[in-house]
Amino acid sequence: MPAKVPLSVSWEGQEDGFLRLLDQTQLPLNETYRDCRTVDDVWEAIRSLQVRGAPAIGIAAAYGICLGAAAAPLAAETRQTELQAIADRLATSRPTAVNLFWALDRQLDCARAMSESASPAQVRTTLLAEARRIHADDRESCHAIGRHGATLLADGSGVLTHCNAGGLATAEYGTALAVIYAAHEAGKQLHVYADETRPLLQGARLTAWELQRHGVPTTLICDSMAAHVMKEGRVQAVVVGADRIAANGDAANKIGTYGLALLAHAHQIPFYVAAPCSTFDLSLPTGDGIPIEQRGAAEVAEFFGSRTAPPGIHVYNPAFDVTPARYIRAIITERGLIQPVTADHVRAVVGSN
Amino acid sequence: MPAKVPLSVSWEGQEDGFLRLLDQTQLPLNETYRDCRTVDDVWEAIRSLQVRGAPAIGIAAAYGICLGAAAAPLAAETRQTELQAIADRLATSRPTAVNLFWALDRQLDCARAMSESASPAQVRTTLLAEARRIHADDRESCHAIGRHGATLLADGSGVLTHCNAGGLATAEYGTALAVIYAAHEAGKQLHVYADETRPLLQGARLTAWELQRHGVPTTLICDSMAAHVMKEGRVQAVVVGADRIAANGDAANKIGTYGLALLAHAHQIPFYVAAPCSTFDLSLPTGDGIPIEQRGAAEVAEFFGSRTAPPGIHVYNPAFDVTPARYIRAIITERGLIQPVTADHVRAVVGSN
Repeated sequence: MPAKVPLSVSWEGQEDGFLRLLDQTQLPLNETYRDCRTVDDVWEAIRSLQVRGAPAIGIAAAYGICLGAAAAPLAAETRQTELQAIADRLATSRPTAVNLFWALDRQLDCARAMSESASPAQVRTTLLAEARRIHADDRESCHAIGRHGATLLADGSGVLTHCNAGGLATAEYGTALAVIYAAHEAGKQLHVYADETRPLLQGARLTAWELQRHGVPTTLICDSMAAHVMKEGRVQAVVVGADRIAANGDAANKIGTYGLALLAHAHQIPFYVAAPCSTFDLSLPTGDGIPIEQRGAAEVAEFFGSRTAPPGIHVYNPAFDVTPARYIRAIITERGLIQPVTADHVRAVVGSN
Repeated sequence: MPAKVPLSVSWEGQEDGFLRLLDQTQLPLNETYRDCRTVDDVWEAIRSLQVRGAPAIGIAAAYGICLGAAAAPLAAETRQTELQAIADRLATSRPTAVNLFWALDRQLDCARAMSESASPAQVRTTLLAEARRIHADDRESCHAIGRHGATLLADGSGVLTHCNAGGLATAEYGTALAVIYAAHEAGKQLHVYADETRPLLQGARLTAWELQRHGVPTTLICDSMAAHVMKEGRVQAVVVGADRIAANGDAANKIGTYGLALLAHAHQIPFYVAAPCSTFDLSLPTGDGIPIEQRGAAEVAEFFGSRTAPPGIHVYNPAFDVTPARYIRAIITERGLIQPVTADHVRAVVGSN
């Protein structure tokens, strides 16, 4: 069934190939692709959310290094400086998702580990192989997350999710949605409530579309309806993704996630975060240190080019919020569950990153 | 300053006049009016939300009876039956706001109290006078709610509100916004966070517009940002309106209100409901008996006429939710505060309805 959902990220060709992205800003009505042939193309695609979702951003950035390497001299004595400059450029595209920095670091480490005598062609081949490994690893991680998480969802459950932590946000299959897909494929009857996720409606546009293609019964609601739906007893679990997780388990995710965690807590509904280990930033002791991306006013005050708020109104538009670990029942990783969510358990599972 | 906001409801002329409504579906970009000359016009205007807000709906319905009376024979022996039929028609326009039924009952009671020998012209004059009294009473109620509630807001506070409980939702000045306006006019520095209020964006379209005209510093946010804004310490009070309040203080209001009450509770922020006594339905012991209006899927799956969700997706669109009394620090009425919110206190303040 996952094959029904087109891939969000693919590399076309060999070292002289290009990065093809499913343009997620055009979904669900148009299935169009954005071909990136330069570092700036990739930067722009990440910044404008044509590719989004922490793991998918990481994969795109890894391939972005390959595009940069194809155009760089890669002389032995300047190679690392050249690649660092490419990585620095890509790193400015979005500040919150740590998988971006993790993937760039992996590529830089990969280059650093190569012999000084490696030819530019050899460097390019090695970097493309590493990007493909990052890509393949994420695919495997998603399926492993699905297997570990599916055990948490009881047959007959209502499951609420926020934003899109699905195949589109990853190599394929997703993180939060992987848990739902795996439980569904195991024969469990689930009903998913998908928050529309203002301001950019990733829930309505992407999650509802993916779940529909997978044949999972889904109801779309506005973000403001989650509490009422919980009160009515329709939700037995909340599962979301994450963009960065601190060493103590505090998790940054799409704005609105923290509120959902509080609402789940008030209704005694377990709240789960599903994310690969590349999402953890062990350099941050708590979530207080996670930078929160602020985005433009137009995302809130306009819609599809139509002005919805009075001209001149002040808008606050944080793209993420941080959910304290104490509200997270378990973090579902490709290596298994972190439960209860404590710094010790995080270190035990993720520490070998 | 309130004069800067156009009136949502006005009666133009005498017994042979008509009801003029500011078309709230066209705000904030267009200030257009809908003139209602028949009962069906009023029914349609309420149903389509051209007039909205529990008190404003009540006022419009009271004038709707006058429009019906102008076209009815009003013979002595059938008068009450004729008026009952008009009221029954108007009562089907929206199910949740009790002020609608309250205003219709007031008009029917008014007609019932008249002498059987009253001429049709006398009946029409009396019903119009009663509608004008309902209208004027609401105006006074709003200002009294403002005076009582303003004491609850400390100088320098951030105040979060949801949907529109302002001048547009009432005769003028509002309920929740009356509290903010009165505190602002008393010289208190406030900063209002207005939830945009999906799906119909009354917060972005109406509340932001009103507050801007009143010169109250305002920031527009998405509904999903409220928890984050609270966590950042920007909010010291939440004030909302209500569409129906049960005898124990459970309050129905725009979908999303219940969630805000839980979030305020989690952050130890006082949560206030501002509403005139006509909003109470003492026939209902608790909020469990309040009917929740379900609205169409297009409000959620489309945005200003543009499709945002995949075709065929199932949508759940309850227009209201119910906040249990235990999460409400005080109910602000025109007769004073109900605090703490208990059935005894409700009866003590509202019982003489």
